[in-house]
Amino acid sequence: MAVWGTSGMAFLDKLRASVSTRDSLLCVGLDPEINRLPRGIPRSLEGVARFNRELIEATAGLVCAFKPNLAFYEALGTGGWDVLRDTLRAVPPDVVTIGDGKRADIGNTSRAYARALFDYLGFDAVTVSPFLGADAVQPFFEDPERGVFVLCRTSNPGASDVQSVPVLTDAGPRPLYELIATVVAGWTRNGNAGLVVGATAPEDLARVRALAPNLPFLVPGVGTQAGDLGAAVAAHRDNAPAVINASRSVAYASSGEDYAAAAERSARALRDAMRQLQGA
Amino acid sequence: MAVWGTSGMAFLDKLRASVSTRDSLLCVGLDPEINRLPRGIPRSLEGVARFNRELIEATAGLVCAFKPNLAFYEALGTGGWDVLRDTLRAVPPDVVTIGDGKRADIGNTSRAYARALFDYLGFDAVTVSPFLGADAVQPFFEDPERGVFVLCRTSNPGASDVQSVPVLTDAGPRPLYELIATVVAGWTRNGNAGLVVGATAPEDLARVRALAPNLPFLVPGVGTQAGDLGAAVAAHRDNAPAVINASRSVAYASSGEDYAAAAERSARALRDAMRQLQGA
Repeated sequence: MAVWGTSGMAFLDKLRASVSTRDSLLCVGLDPEINRLPRGIPRSLEGVARFNRELIEATAGLVCAFKPNLAFYEALGTGGWDVLRDTLRAVPPDVVTIGDGKRADIGNTSRAYARALFDYLGFDAVTVSPFLGADAVQPFFEDPERGVFVLCRTSNPGASDVQSVPVLTDAGPRPLYELIATVVAGWTRNGNAGLVVGATAPEDLARVRALAPNLPFLVPGVGTQAGDLGAAVAAHRDNAPAVINASRSVAYASSGEDYAAAAERSARALRDAMRQLQGA
Repeated sequence: MAVWGTSGMAFLDKLRASVSTRDSLLCVGLDPEINRLPRGIPRSLEGVARFNRELIEATAGLVCAFKPNLAFYEALGTGGWDVLRDTLRAVPPDVVTIGDGKRADIGNTSRAYARALFDYLGFDAVTVSPFLGADAVQPFFEDPERGVFVLCRTSNPGASDVQSVPVLTDAGPRPLYELIATVVAGWTRNGNAGLVVGATAPEDLARVRALAPNLPFLVPGVGTQAGDLGAAVAAHRDNAPAVINASRSVAYASSGEDYAAAAERSARALRDAMRQLQGA
């Protein structure tokens, strides 16, 4: 295993280890909304922090990763970043943390984002948008210990508006997301690139896996978005994991005081379903 | 003038009024970096807030808009959002504020971003990325008083990596940014869409203006990025302003204690150069 800096592991090694230690492809999204906090939790910043800590405690043994989406912390106002930092501290050190912010900007600006996400908050990985091109995401790739999942084919209904437009290539017209799938590996020399590919378009997911056999995938869209769990699991490779995310279906599995136990049951059911599909 | 909510003006009306009241197309970017603060300013959150307030005081009479880029506030850590809120409070109410974050995510997540940027921080407008498609930016368009500048052809060197790939259209192959330029107006019924088009590719800027004659433009890339000021000004229309941004060349015009006066001189020179080009 390659050794760098403090944690001593290249990002992909840490991700593979996290997947294999717990034998789980499940990533739980931590996207708290004050108005959706379950009964028994105060509707305050402290309540959000407690809710996240309890979700992490209840599910950490079942997951390879946690994925807070930054939007939900920004929506909390100034204290939101403190809540996010507290939340990350509650994650066991061998579980991967993914900061889902879909950022990218011109060079000096992306550098500021990278500082915020990696140095200040301490994420293991982030999501970024490819729309501004390679130089705009370069600062995120610089540290081999940090992973970068580039948006490729997202899980939302309108994903095809731009991502599926037919692009002229030497091999004929191809959807834009296929182009993204083929170029991203070349955007880093540190082996720390990955792709975001939704489970809501199973055929596209399979095509992207064929085009990018060695990149880890972050796969959103199972759970509330009703993506195809079988297709998500089929995209997994031991050398290039498919990390499969569920957010609302776990965190809000119950709106009552049994929320933590309900989240644990929901996460366990998802993990077990993935294991079964892997075995099948 | 249409009347809505508290400020009582549709976004485009507010923008046009701001441009015409001051006869200025200049937008000053507020992108503070603690290590670049001029001499005489403490390297602290309070120092950043003071620096921004003084920049605003020195240049508010010369600009139609201020554009803080969120990355630089996130890089400050938790207190960064307080600094940003303080900064926005120092902007005269008739000057447009643009939150440059280039966000977009699935629906419920973009809704959280919109809450953070519009409700909590109070920006008049934001920048968003089109990569996830129309539904991902819909929540930003909902309030007719708030403007949404969609990334189209950005100013960075790698912009062409994705934005210029040739897309098949009924009229033959066209660069992706031209497709974006033509579809964005249809993403809102509130007349509050705009485009981000850099000054570093003057011919592309002219083509986008021809395709989107009625959308306001946010034009980055003059100043430090050495874009073409003439091309930027030529993209201005009275009904659809081209708001031309300079950040570092104004804020860091001097690293000495005369920074505010130097910023004022730099902003005035840019504004005057734009006026001259408009008259030419």
